[in-house]
Amino acid sequence: MDRRHEILVAANQSFTLFGYKATTMDQVARMANVGKGTIYTFFANKDVLFQEIVISMIEEMKTQTEKAIDTKAPFLDNAHNILMSLLQFREMHKLYAKLVEEGHAIRTPQVENMLVKVESAVVSYLASKIQIAIDKGEIKTCNPQQVAFLLFKAYLAFVVEWPETHQTELDETTIVNLFKNTLFGGLTP
Amino acid sequence: MDRRHEILVAANQSFTLFGYKATTMDQVARMANVGKGTIYTFFANKDVLFQEIVISMIEEMKTQTEKAIDTKAPFLDNAHNILMSLLQFREMHKLYAKLVEEGHAIRTPQVENMLVKVESAVVSYLASKIQIAIDKGEIKTCNPQQVAFLLFKAYLAFVVEWPETHQTELDETTIVNLFKNTLFGGLTP
Repeated sequence: MDRRHEILVAANQSFTLFGYKATTMDQVARMANVGKGTIYTFFANKDVLFQEIVISMIEEMKTQTEKAIDTKAPFLDNAHNILMSLLQFREMHKLYAKLVEEGHAIRTPQVENMLVKVESAVVSYLASKIQIAIDKGEIKTCNPQQVAFLLFKAYLAFVVEWPETHQTELDETTIVNLFKNTLFGGLTP
Repeated sequence: MDRRHEILVAANQSFTLFGYKATTMDQVARMANVGKGTIYTFFANKDVLFQEIVISMIEEMKTQTEKAIDTKAPFLDNAHNILMSLLQFREMHKLYAKLVEEGHAIRTPQVENMLVKVESAVVSYLASKIQIAIDKGEIKTCNPQQVAFLLFKAYLAFVVEWPETHQTELDETTIVNLFKNTLFGGLTP
């Protein structure tokens, strides 16, 4: 395994265990078992490390999502499969949301901008899929950006926010059925 | 106007202008033009003041919502009217969300518990209305608590979060139509 990857794995562990603020380059160096100098040859600072981790998370999700899509299948089947595949990243999404929340007061403009870009990239991606479904006549005409934004927020609400205020998590079937019976049921003609 | 009410108005102004952290009992006393001792005869501390303001906001919303409901009208008409009446409190909701966010790191367990209770009270209220609509056969059978939670989060997404990442606000008609064409469209048989 190459050094760069080892450092990313260690940084991910450190963010998960200790949060955003308590993660330092020293901490990551210790966990990756490399000298601090080595880290700086790959990553300028903690923010850059954090950005790199988030970007690779997004890439991995995008790959999984593309795999779940069958362009010949009906919209509802694809939506179901995408949702199920995204729910495999549930723990990662909760961690991400925790870091976003924790970092809110202390993060740099650099990280702040990156988070805005990530949300906007995910929503735009969803919006493009909604536009395709509209063009195929599979869902009602709507504003794809606004509906994509709602889908994104509904996902976070069920996966991240529900467990915070309730004692239990919602299982995959419950979440998928909630989307089907409310949002999707409304979107299909 | 009685003293207690004057103090509440001043505290509300202070929270709006300076935020949660920068609001002090001294500040509120100056703005209400009363002695600091007077404030303490009514409110033990800033948290109690904040709680009182949030509770009266909820009461006012509940009154407006009840006014908007016509038990003889169809579910969609009532949902439309409730939503329109809630949107009149839009600025208040944005302020509330800002205070919640700002207070996240610094607020006391007392305030933390109150915010959880507020969310839970609003969601339960919505859930009871959903249950009535299910019993009347106006909407599909669903888990009222989960759907109410989604409605609550969707409202916050459109009213509070959309303007934060986009340059513009969504107008009333757009928000009402988004609910109609996604969530509600899915809820009605």
